[in-house]
Amino acid sequence: MVGAAGFGGAVAASILDAHPSIELTALTARTDAGRRLCDVYPRHRVDLTMDEFDADRVAEQADVAIVGYPHKAAAPAVKALRERGLKVVDLSADFRLSRELYEREYQPHEAPELLGEAVYGLTELHRDEIAGADLVGAPGCYPTAALLGLWPLREIAADAIVDAKSGVSGAGRDANATTHFVSVAENVNAYGVEGHRHRAELDQELPGLTVTFTPHLLPIDQGLLASCYVTPSREVTADEVRDLFRAAYEDEPFVELADAPPGVRDVRETNLCRIHATVEPATGRVLAFAAIDNLWKGAAGQAVQDLNLMLGLSETEGLT
Amino acid sequence: MVGAAGFGGAVAASILDAHPSIELTALTARTDAGRRLCDVYPRHRVDLTMDEFDADRVAEQADVAIVGYPHKAAAPAVKALRERGLKVVDLSADFRLSRELYEREYQPHEAPELLGEAVYGLTELHRDEIAGADLVGAPGCYPTAALLGLWPLREIAADAIVDAKSGVSGAGRDANATTHFVSVAENVNAYGVEGHRHRAELDQELPGLTVTFTPHLLPIDQGLLASCYVTPSREVTADEVRDLFRAAYEDEPFVELADAPPGVRDVRETNLCRIHATVEPATGRVLAFAAIDNLWKGAAGQAVQDLNLMLGLSETEGLT
Amino acid sequence: MVGAAGFGGAVAASILDAHPSIELTALTARTDAGRRLCDVYPRHRVDLTMDEFDADRVAEQADVAIVGYPHKAAAPAVKALRERGLKVVDLSADFRLSRELYEREYQPHEAPELLGEAVYGLTELHRDEIAGADLVGAPGCYPTAALLGLWPLREIAADAIVDAKSGVSGAGRDANATTHFVSVAENVNAYGVEGHRHRAELDQELPGLTVTFTPHLLPIDQGLLASCYVTPSREVTADEVRDLFRAAYEDEPFVELADAPPGVRDVRETNLCRIHATVEPATGRVLAFAAIDNLWKGAAGQAVQDLNLMLGLSETEGLT
Amino acid sequence: MVGAAGFGGAVAASILDAHPSIELTALTARTDAGRRLCDVYPRHRVDLTMDEFDADRVAEQADVAIVGYPHKAAAPAVKALRERGLKVVDLSADFRLSRELYEREYQPHEAPELLGEAVYGLTELHRDEIAGADLVGAPGCYPTAALLGLWPLREIAADAIVDAKSGVSGAGRDANATTHFVSVAENVNAYGVEGHRHRAELDQELPGLTVTFTPHLLPIDQGLLASCYVTPSREVTADEVRDLFRAAYEDEPFVELADAPPGVRDVRETNLCRIHATVEPATGRVLAFAAIDNLWKGAAGQAVQDLNLMLGLSETEGLT
Repeated sequence: MVGAAGFGGAVAASILDAHPSIELTALTARTDAGRRLCDVYPRHRVDLTMDEFDADRVAEQADVAIVGYPHKAAAPAVKALRERGLKVVDLSADFRLSRELYEREYQPHEAPELLGEAVYGLTELHRDEIAGADLVGAPGCYPTAALLGLWPLREIAADAIVDAKSGVSGAGRDANATTHFVSVAENVNAYGVEGHRHRAELDQELPGLTVTFTPHLLPIDQGLLASCYVTPSREVTADEVRDLFRAAYEDEPFVELADAPPGVRDVRETNLCRIHATVEPATGRVLAFAAIDNLWKGAAGQAVQDLNLMLGLSETEGLT
Repeated sequence: MVGAAGFGGAVAASILDAHPSIELTALTARTDAGRRLCDVYPRHRVDLTMDEFDADRVAEQADVAIVGYPHKAAAPAVKALRERGLKVVDLSADFRLSRELYEREYQPHEAPELLGEAVYGLTELHRDEIAGADLVGAPGCYPTAALLGLWPLREIAADAIVDAKSGVSGAGRDANATTHFVSVAENVNAYGVEGHRHRAELDQELPGLTVTFTPHLLPIDQGLLASCYVTPSREVTADEVRDLFRAAYEDEPFVELADAPPGVRDVRETNLCRIHATVEPATGRVLAFAAIDNLWKGAAGQAVQDLNLMLGLSETEGLT
Repeated sequence: MVGAAGFGGAVAASILDAHPSIELTALTARTDAGRRLCDVYPRHRVDLTMDEFDADRVAEQADVAIVGYPHKAAAPAVKALRERGLKVVDLSADFRLSRELYEREYQPHEAPELLGEAVYGLTELHRDEIAGADLVGAPGCYPTAALLGLWPLREIAADAIVDAKSGVSGAGRDANATTHFVSVAENVNAYGVEGHRHRAELDQELPGLTVTFTPHLLPIDQGLLASCYVTPSREVTADEVRDLFRAAYEDEPFVELADAPPGVRDVRETNLCRIHATVEPATGRVLAFAAIDNLWKGAAGQAVQDLNLMLGLSETEGLT
Repeated sequence: MVGAAGFGGAVAASILDAHPSIELTALTARTDAGRRLCDVYPRHRVDLTMDEFDADRVAEQADVAIVGYPHKAAAPAVKALRERGLKVVDLSADFRLSRELYEREYQPHEAPELLGEAVYGLTELHRDEIAGADLVGAPGCYPTAALLGLWPLREIAADAIVDAKSGVSGAGRDANATTHFVSVAENVNAYGVEGHRHRAELDQELPGLTVTFTPHLLPIDQGLLASCYVTPSREVTADEVRDLFRAAYEDEPFVELADAPPGVRDVRETNLCRIHATVEPATGRVLAFAAIDNLWKGAAGQAVQDLNLMLGLSETEGLT
């Protein structure tokens, strides 16, 4: 686990530490190098010391790696590990997008030569490619929930609005005015309304569909809800909508279809996406609500799901 | 103040208690009759005992009344007070809607003969009628924020989606599974997705506009945010949108236009509605975010604003 | 699992459902009979339907039972199960105390003839008796943390004050004014200051020590902190205090000694009690802070720990 | 208002802005100089721009000042203002303590020559001295609640333990790991257990009484509860204890005696200290629970209360 000191990295480390078929052999971190993960996060109870990143040493210690660095910092580390033959799942944005979309939203790419082999790690959409991949870019938390809510509707969607609501852990471990308890408690606000970079993943995975995407910050720790409003291109009934979701997900181990709007508590500390889809009687608009734990299905859990596939293990190992 | 023991009624009582030109003379309550308001709500510090409701006695004690009963229970009390000549602002749904809309969403009306004189109490839309009215139905908390967010856009809106988020005080003082701390903390969920009754107020005030309306419950105490997504009937720029809002609200004492999306903390315990409106560059869709305190501008504060107008006082008295 | 619909019962069911050596065969509930546990608590994912309690049927389905009824309701159910030969761990207060203490704090006992065989289920104090018991009364959440904080100090304590702070799940699933989100959010208060019944467990387990005990309610979901202030009968150093705790707990699988005051987050959703003990330099007073998850080590987790011992299993099975 | 950008300073500015007899003429800030206060804190609605601190300019603009800098930074600013003849209330620790106690807990004092004229600003204990003072050091938030809880008991207290619980605004506006939402939510922990500097104020104001003092951090925004456990030097009844509190506070405008333990919500956004005192039947120990809003009675409100006295105004002006 490279970059274990962030919120997502720490959860990934704790999942791997308890994984029946994967052995967690090494942790690295930048600012917290030299500390044990369980001293930084007592709850995660992973009694391994985080080292400075050294690609050669990691290559001696491991055959696969999850990389938990921020975007831009991730690409060089991933490159170094790929050059040493490790299979990699990257939690940053660096390997999620085509070069064009990446450079439109972020900055010049640090390792564009790897983009050809990188697979977008949303298992429910790209299971087979992930199983054969050596490099997977795990999706962002917002796109995970939004895509799972929109995917079954893609054939009937004229346009879509995603009003997304996330807990503060999605903003990362950095302490600033936005993540200060006093800013967040008893508050809710939209942000990134002029354009949030996670939209690029929607553009890439749902080509041809115009999506309005607005994230909101909530006074919760973990959890993310995507409320999706889809104008259908033809009249549909609630039953038809439910059938579309059932067809798309009935064999999915980590998608749960619910009879009522899910709460993020329902999926807290699980790798599940829980979805309720229906039609608003008064308008005929299709509504889909998708709830995940942003650190699990929205980051670390999904990365382990990817890793399981890449290693030929059962997709659910270590995740239930 | 009739029905002072609910969350909205108690805030109304505390505003009136400190009002420079209105004297708070009597409180009534149903289950808490016989208790002082400051014993039920120490924070509100109103040292008056709540009596059982008796229209004759209230008529001796007061010339005007705010009624804070639930819908259906409110209409008979309002009727009794109107028969005794009191001017009334009602916090329930009973006098907000035409009979047709009311009976579609609620139940047979208990005092339909009063609907002719009742005015919908959203000051920014109906100031003059309110000033001349003897009976005002104060708007619901959701419609207050949604209407203030949508009103300036009504000429250019082809359709609209309102994703609304409310704190728990909006659900009232009743203790049940929904309002239990353990249900709400670290959670967020949509509800009423098959049709919430507050939509009727949008239908009434914005005739001809199809509005999708979905409320969500947040782990906050007071505060309500309406995120409004409007598909414009013609291309508009962010500047045009801001001009529409400026034209609509520049003289409004309780509407504040902001350069960035408002948080509900920004308006906590105030009678303000704080709004940010813009255009999403990627889609051309108009976004408007309207934040209020659901117990103030969404209930008690707005009721006092109405009362000020009805009594010929300055609209802002007691509210700043 | 008898009485699975309460907060503690549901956690116990979910732990047993994943237990490698115990099979969860039946659930019962009172008000929620007929519903699947995973419909009442989606998070717990236990796909078993809760039946009405019928001792004969439970006796056919199981060899051991955890009973999660409130006190007074628990005793008859426990009696019926014991008569049918089941080993029982009871989560209520009914089998924690001597008859004298029980009837002082609660009411006449419904099954006093069973008190002779009942063992107080605090594993760290009564491991051997629990291992041989057929009936165990799992300790209350407050006494669990307080006793683990005070036990190593019992020889040197002249007197003790326990200022305890609990999350709302400790107050149970009952919806009332105390557990309403709006009462709890942005609040903290002491309660039961004239005498809380959990004190009886301290009196019983720490005979001869005078303990002041005051619980407080916090705006958190799960978690309990006991801040223990002990006036020593002789001067002690922080090192001596740490040695006492190390001697008491160094082999305990579920007690963790920390170098700094624990937060309840550190033990959330674990069966651990995390303790920091030291001496206040300015006064020489001994301070011990013990943090648990009130639903795990304070209820369901501890009950499974007891059950493991009673069945001759490893004490930690299903709990890590 | 010098140093208006901190949490306490901003509340002080908003109180002064609405004060009927004091005109708020100038604001200064360090990092936020050049911004309007209402842009940094929309909720406070104070439409004044914060300037860099310049003692000469402040002296032209004002006759009195509240200084809201951190300790050590405050003393030089206070000195500069006193040299220009302004009366000053300082929110930092710099003028609360004797030189000896200050330098024991903090650092060498930056303006020791002013300590002779400085008065400790706890109105209930030092009203007359404050009325005649030109320089007042407003008490810390913890000592305010603890002293008000202990003061009436000083004659009968053999020793005392204060378990104090504070919201996060007490930790200031600085964003760090401690104030990050994810650290605080669903958590509670003690801190400063080896010795918190606020104890020095207790030592100074309650000479001869040994006080154990332990602060805890809670997941709330504003509010502070001091739970005081006092071993009496002679047996006392609950009635005697209540009489002591009544005698001490019956004429105090900002102390409220309650029949049950207060919650911090009861005093939120008020300058009140609400206290419940009793005797624990089982042990004879005296319990006193004192709740304040840490930013009001614990900082800014109390500073305005001091200022009112220093200016010969009614003590409650602007505070009710």
